[in-house]
Amino acid sequence: MPSKLQNARLEYQPKIPKILESLATASVAPSGNDAVSKEIADIFPRTCHQPYLVIGVGAKRDHHPLRVGVVLSGGQAPGGHNVISGLFDALKTLNPKSTLMGFLGGPSGIVGDKTLEITHKLVDKYRNMGGFDMIGSGRTKIETDEQFSKAEAVMRKHELDGLVVVGGDDSNTNAALLAEYFLSKGCKTCVVGVPKTIDGDLKSDEIECSFGFDTAAKTYAATVGSMMRDALSAKKYYYFIKLMGRSASHLALECALQTHPNITLISEEVAADKKTLAAIVDDICDVVLRRADLGKDYGVIVIPEGLIEFIPEVKILIEELNAILSPSKDHAAAIEKIASRNDKMDYAARLLGEGSRKCFRSLPEDIQGQLLIGRDAHGNVQVSKIETERMLIDMVKSALKQRQELGTYKGKFDTQPHFCGYEGRSCMPSNFDSAYCYALGRVAALLLDAGATGYLCTVSRLVEPAEQWQGGGVPLTSLMNIEKRHGSDKPVIKKALVDLKGGAFGMLKQNRDKWALEDDYVDPGPLQYFGPEAIMDAPTMTLELEQKK
Amino acid sequence: MPSKLQNARLEYQPKIPKILESLATASVAPSGNDAVSKEIADIFPRTCHQPYLVIGVGAKRDHHPLRVGVVLSGGQAPGGHNVISGLFDALKTLNPKSTLMGFLGGPSGIVGDKTLEITHKLVDKYRNMGGFDMIGSGRTKIETDEQFSKAEAVMRKHELDGLVVVGGDDSNTNAALLAEYFLSKGCKTCVVGVPKTIDGDLKSDEIECSFGFDTAAKTYAATVGSMMRDALSAKKYYYFIKLMGRSASHLALECALQTHPNITLISEEVAADKKTLAAIVDDICDVVLRRADLGKDYGVIVIPEGLIEFIPEVKILIEELNAILSPSKDHAAAIEKIASRNDKMDYAARLLGEGSRKCFRSLPEDIQGQLLIGRDAHGNVQVSKIETERMLIDMVKSALKQRQELGTYKGKFDTQPHFCGYEGRSCMPSNFDSAYCYALGRVAALLLDAGATGYLCTVSRLVEPAEQWQGGGVPLTSLMNIEKRHGSDKPVIKKALVDLKGGAFGMLKQNRDKWALEDDYVDPGPLQYFGPEAIMDAPTMTLELEQKK
Repeated sequence: MPSKLQNARLEYQPKIPKILESLATASVAPSGNDAVSKEIADIFPRTCHQPYLVIGVGAKRDHHPLRVGVVLSGGQAPGGHNVISGLFDALKTLNPKSTLMGFLGGPSGIVGDKTLEITHKLVDKYRNMGGFDMIGSGRTKIETDEQFSKAEAVMRKHELDGLVVVGGDDSNTNAALLAEYFLSKGCKTCVVGVPKTIDGDLKSDEIECSFGFDTAAKTYAATVGSMMRDALSAKKYYYFIKLMGRSASHLALECALQTHPNITLISEEVAADKKTLAAIVDDICDVVLRRADLGKDYGVIVIPEGLIEFIPEVKILIEELNAILSPSKDHAAAIEKIASRNDKMDYAARLLGEGSRKCFRSLPEDIQGQLLIGRDAHGNVQVSKIETERMLIDMVKSALKQRQELGTYKGKFDTQPHFCGYEGRSCMPSNFDSAYCYALGRVAALLLDAGATGYLCTVSRLVEPAEQWQGGGVPLTSLMNIEKRHGSDKPVIKKALVDLKGGAFGMLKQNRDKWALEDDYVDPGPLQYFGPEAIMDAPTMTLELEQKK
Repeated sequence: MPSKLQNARLEYQPKIPKILESLATASVAPSGNDAVSKEIADIFPRTCHQPYLVIGVGAKRDHHPLRVGVVLSGGQAPGGHNVISGLFDALKTLNPKSTLMGFLGGPSGIVGDKTLEITHKLVDKYRNMGGFDMIGSGRTKIETDEQFSKAEAVMRKHELDGLVVVGGDDSNTNAALLAEYFLSKGCKTCVVGVPKTIDGDLKSDEIECSFGFDTAAKTYAATVGSMMRDALSAKKYYYFIKLMGRSASHLALECALQTHPNITLISEEVAADKKTLAAIVDDICDVVLRRADLGKDYGVIVIPEGLIEFIPEVKILIEELNAILSPSKDHAAAIEKIASRNDKMDYAARLLGEGSRKCFRSLPEDIQGQLLIGRDAHGNVQVSKIETERMLIDMVKSALKQRQELGTYKGKFDTQPHFCGYEGRSCMPSNFDSAYCYALGRVAALLLDAGATGYLCTVSRLVEPAEQWQGGGVPLTSLMNIEKRHGSDKPVIKKALVDLKGGAFGMLKQNRDKWALEDDYVDPGPLQYFGPEAIMDAPTMTLELEQKK
């Protein structure tokens, strides 16, 4: 049952860029090549030397009906349903006989041939809605020869002209491999990707941002802004707020720019400065002390979810633990059998190298436990399950106690942990993401109609009003490089981490001393779907600072 | 620095009820008496037989300048600043020579004579803003003879005609005592209260709801709705979402009505049914099993913050622990000295009666620890610090493991805890709370202008459009009864718990079997300040169901 706002959003027509309005006269033209490395060319002999594509205006022409499949891959991001509705509407406009089918539950739906025909009636239930529930999503990767061959068979069975892969870096790497594979087998299915991830780390010169980032950032910033106002009103808590974002700190940075927390940790900076955990804790204590001197025993600290993997010593510890606890060894089973938590930790500590043992022992007991218990099927520590916000609270508390005993700190330190996460990845997309995703869907239809394969769809000039946005395609191979994964060379799309020389981080760096002590808090408020354009349609500050040159 | 939305809200003029528009011609008339008990009459001889008051239209007349003080008391609630702006604007309209001063940091600002003059310039910085930071708040109670006498001296010093106390049940009890005290001392200061609390438990036949409830409920419902969409999309987690609300379950109930979770616990029902913790856990397991049979290993469970105090056996346990750990005994100090957490728990368990020992031992270790460690200055367990959502996750996990071993459960059970709390009490007020609070401020000015003391300000007919709302005053004594507190009889305003025979709970009861299994999820989306009136101005469902008869 839709809510009143959902009903209004179901009726909402996202803004359409001028260039994407009249599909019948849209042209897809090449626009320069990019050089790729020999290693990439070896893996993608058929798709590696393709030109960039730009959508323009051409002569009106007839379009053949297309049979297209779409798959949602990986974690939810607001706007996924709009990619599908944009794609659907465009395909039907180009030729009403075109069909769109969804693969259910992510890439496993491709391999397992689980499909759903996407109809007008179905699409109309999901316009501008959050979540990925129309066709579901999943994290299966198409990796083995058998999986590739099954995927090909399914494409042939459904006689698909095109496949749209909506996903992040890994999923789009997969899209590139599928495109190359289908070409090599003489299978007609063209593959194009759409850049999805709330983390904002699928980004390049051509891809200004991934979809979902805008909505998630605004959702989290609303919470951070409200908590600041609460901190300032009650004057009794430090809020330690962890923000979702698997690896890169874009979401933490964007929220910081929108709200001005007293402390914002940026994982990329921690790694660049080779900070120890103790040094991070010390930095936090220093701000707490300086604020206490001003009579302020409250504040807001923003922590990116991926932080601990960027702390060099913790990264090594996690790697050692992953090796020790690998299912191929007996240690995991042995630890499982030990009854007392302390004994479990002692057992693990003995197996670690000296540096890692010291690091492990410096962690709060709960966190030591989480490192040992929260492992995935491969024995790897599940970093997203480590409660970094609580870890830092415990460690800062201990460090402040020492300073209290030394007489250097006389303040009160009471805390509240908070995690901004799952609520930001399935909420209704902002007007920005609604329009961006709808446009991406239209671009996907045009690229497939032009017979393009191995491309990532782009919509650019995103800081301008939506009417002025441009569309195009970037060859997936141009985004790739080679990385060692599990001992062998693999082509991957490199995650775009926070650029420490970029405008967004620069803005934080320039202001953070001020924000640490003054309460220059900003409350962006909840995401608005109506009202003045400057409020309801504005892009993120990251985009403004990166793109407005 | 205000955000764009904050700037828009600073300029926003809340809707004003017709009856409160022209202050110069507003009349305050009596409207029937209420009988109070002898005990209340004994404590409030001067204020106990006052009539209800109704605001109407009278002849235009001149108004003397008034000197008024205002104090914010207790936890933040969205709209507090609008009470002040409504009061300020009304006082200045009645007579531009009137003055308003704020007492800083709550009631301690009264006793300590910490004040701030409220000016046009100041008020304009806080119109429709969240938080209580204009003058701060605090939890001090004015209780001792010395405090009362200091309060009187401060009133006399500032020659205050009126004092407005913005607070919950306890603060308004305090307001009643101050009104009576000032009268008994011949001090001219009239005292009126304003019903504030996001918990929604300050409610009676005359007070349709407390301010802040609307905004907090909508803020939490947005998160719950988004998480549902996420559950439905990822199909891999059960979200255990705890909602703020010290004691009553109104917020949990309202969010449930807005979003339709699979399970909603209502503390008042748990108490009425005398449910054990084990029975609650069993109930949850049953739903998880039935959903697993339908292939659904995901869902959303809403938990009111106050739950554990309503479980009879846990309530007894907490009372025993409070007694044992009282600072007047040595046990707390002894436990403090014990190094190992297990030994601490053993020590405490030995002191408990058999029933409570069993209950204590049935709790997850972390929760046992929280019960022992998170105590306030009086040795009382701080119930708000108990992480009920994590406790239930642990206990349901154990119970499901047993069922798995018995072969009755074959599903997967992965969980995410979440707490909706501090972000909902200091965010910008909804249009409803903006208008409601602004109107309450105007009513406060009119009551003080009429020389009323010992009243709670009311604005009623809240389910109608704001233009049709009515204003009035209810004698604080009519809301009071006698309760034992710390061994002696005290007058208190009784908390309005969820009425298990009321329309709001009835709606949940009628639908919950359906909501448990079907995914009838509703995503209300974030609070909107612009757009269609049905979206931006709508009252809560609780109000609709309770007031639309």
